Amino acid sequence: MYMNGRLSSSSDLAVELWRMETLLRLLEGLNDESGSTQDEHGSYMNNNMSVPKVGIGMDASVTPLRHAGLCLVQTTDFFYPLVDDPYMQGKIACANVLSDLYAMGVIECDNMLMLVTVSSKLTDKERDVVMPLMLRGFKDAAMEAGTVVTGGQTIINPWITIGGVASAICQAPEIILPEHAVPGDVLVLTKPLGTQVAVNAHQWLDIPERWNRIKLVVSEEDVRKAYNRAMDSMARLNKNAARLMHKYNAHGATDITGFGLLGHAQNLAKNQKAEVSFVIHNLPVIAKMTAVAKACGNMFQLLQGLSAETSGGLLICLPREQAAAYCKDIEKQEGYQAWIIGIVEKGNRTARIIDKPRVIEVPSKEREGELW
Amino acid sequence: MYMNGRLSSSSDLAVELWRMETLLRLLEGLNDESGSTQDEHGSYMNNNMSVPKVGIGMDASVTPLRHAGLCLVQTTDFFYPLVDDPYMQGKIACANVLSDLYAMGVIECDNMLMLVTVSSKLTDKERDVVMPLMLRGFKDAAMEAGTVVTGGQTIINPWITIGGVASAICQAPEIILPEHAVPGDVLVLTKPLGTQVAVNAHQWLDIPERWNRIKLVVSEEDVRKAYNRAMDSMARLNKNAARLMHKYNAHGATDITGFGLLGHAQNLAKNQKAEVSFVIHNLPVIAKMTAVAKACGNMFQLLQGLSAETSGGLLICLPREQAAAYCKDIEKQEGYQAWIIGIVEKGNRTARIIDKPRVIEVPSKEREGELW
Repeated sequence: MYMNGRLSSSSDLAVELWRMETLLRLLEGLNDESGSTQDEHGSYMNNNMSVPKVGIGMDASVTPLRHAGLCLVQTTDFFYPLVDDPYMQGKIACANVLSDLYAMGVIECDNMLMLVTVSSKLTDKERDVVMPLMLRGFKDAAMEAGTVVTGGQTIINPWITIGGVASAICQAPEIILPEHAVPGDVLVLTKPLGTQVAVNAHQWLDIPERWNRIKLVVSEEDVRKAYNRAMDSMARLNKNAARLMHKYNAHGATDITGFGLLGHAQNLAKNQKAEVSFVIHNLPVIAKMTAVAKACGNMFQLLQGLSAETSGGLLICLPREQAAAYCKDIEKQEGYQAWIIGIVEKGNRTARIIDKPRVIEVPSKEREGELW
Repeated sequence: MYMNGRLSSSSDLAVELWRMETLLRLLEGLNDESGSTQDEHGSYMNNNMSVPKVGIGMDASVTPLRHAGLCLVQTTDFFYPLVDDPYMQGKIACANVLSDLYAMGVIECDNMLMLVTVSSKLTDKERDVVMPLMLRGFKDAAMEAGTVVTGGQTIINPWITIGGVASAICQAPEIILPEHAVPGDVLVLTKPLGTQVAVNAHQWLDIPERWNRIKLVVSEEDVRKAYNRAMDSMARLNKNAARLMHKYNAHGATDITGFGLLGHAQNLAKNQKAEVSFVIHNLPVIAKMTAVAKACGNMFQLLQGLSAETSGGLLICLPREQAAAYCKDIEKQEGYQAWIIGIVEKGNRTARIIDKPRVIEVPSKEREGELW
């Protein structure tokens, strides 16, 4: 799920909150009545094998299949473009959909569908340039993930939307259910926070009254670099992060998107079997975006962990003795850092950020080839 | 795929045509480069078993899986509401998505996802009444189909859209590939045509300048009855029609939606292995809708087979000696007629409607409980 980066007025927020509450309720209603035989932990017995079943609430649904021992792991997401490079937007949309599978430890996606609406407000020329680039970006990211786009649907709409569906047919051991955290685990985050702040700040370069609000704390170049870092980060697949979850015996994960770090941490904590709570000490944030967020008052709530992210990192519960090796391995394979950001302790399935968390400034970047 | 029932201006049509052409091209491009080893008929060898692979172009994609002998059959569709009863709209959207699986002979859907956009123009009260009804309709149709909704995505959008994703994990014999028609087969259609005409005529009851155009050929009551028949027809599942395809050895099928009867017949003909062509003699149409279509000049092109349908019937190629029994069986099980509408002859993979097709007027209906 995703909270529109351009969301700002309180009426939009009211709509957005309605959406979350009502729709979650409606979807949970659907879930309750699905009529399956579930035990207290939601697992489902099938052909004498324990095949997991996960309904609405976590990142992807897991549906036991008629064929012995197999499950369908599936997710969908679509949203409005938030970067001005259509090719990168396509990649981001694809990475964002796949991320829900990766959060469940599923690394092989069997196919994807693409969901696109084409804006009726584009001129013919805009459309013929923008849409193929966006689809190409989506397709390239799918290929990078080792999967293929086998279909989709496209309609005309006032606004452009892009998203998709990712499906994996798995045996149970391929899935890491997000429910096995134990006291003593640590929390690892695989991408920096601040994508929403960076995307908004970048838009404000063209809106003087907004720009005036932040220009004392950040330069134009800082913003461009942060925006490029955000785009790269959002377009990056969480696939290696998921693969390494198996290698280092992760106890469960979620991906950070519309509800922000704390929102998703709380959701993950609530889903644990053991009586645990999550305490977050460190916040890795794209360079300068903490200053921008602070200059905007309560708008983003970045340090409260509530700023929406798009295609954010995995938040992973790892055994304490494995976490450093996990972070080292991912940095070696990807060239990007991951961070130990908190701990799992005994508690009542909640998550919080400590009073004065340490902010880790994550270097932003020049965009390759963008020197002119 | 679906053509908006309210589509009328030529600029909308231009956009729509662009959509079809460009997106088909883009999607076909994606398909070509999927990198799979395919033989000339698109089938795919896996674990020494012939597992079908169907890409973009027919109703659902078929993706061979890593697990021996299994395929993922999957489809997605979403569109704008076209009836004013939100519950029925939800059912129609669900039936429409499932129909793509049924067209491939697949009768067991493993799960569905729901894709919804909530209009930002609805008042709080409208939203809280309309959206739950729509979701309920979708869910009830899924339950009727023996499947469950396991997830979905909802965003705010200027316009409401509703649709979903249907997935089935099958063994090859569960699928009837739409490619085995032979000369001598006959064509059966399982729902009447004219849903777009009926939906439009019903809207025109409130638009005097439109209503004046058709009031000489149709009464208000005729229109209401036709509209109710259209709603019922669109909300009806093609599941029994698909099940009986197996019983009567169907040689392939497609479902009739946005491209109209002839458009989909041409698409199906093009996909055949044998050198065949389809000739359509009979057009079953919801009562009075032929007269309405004629009164509107070239607007609908109903008798040319080009009027868009939503959640239309299956068009099935059946051995000649089985077709009558198929039609009898479906009428017995469903209480609705199916019709033999044409023949398969030797030809170059095209489809046509004869010069003066016989129009079969299909009785419309009162809506139950709508006497006040």
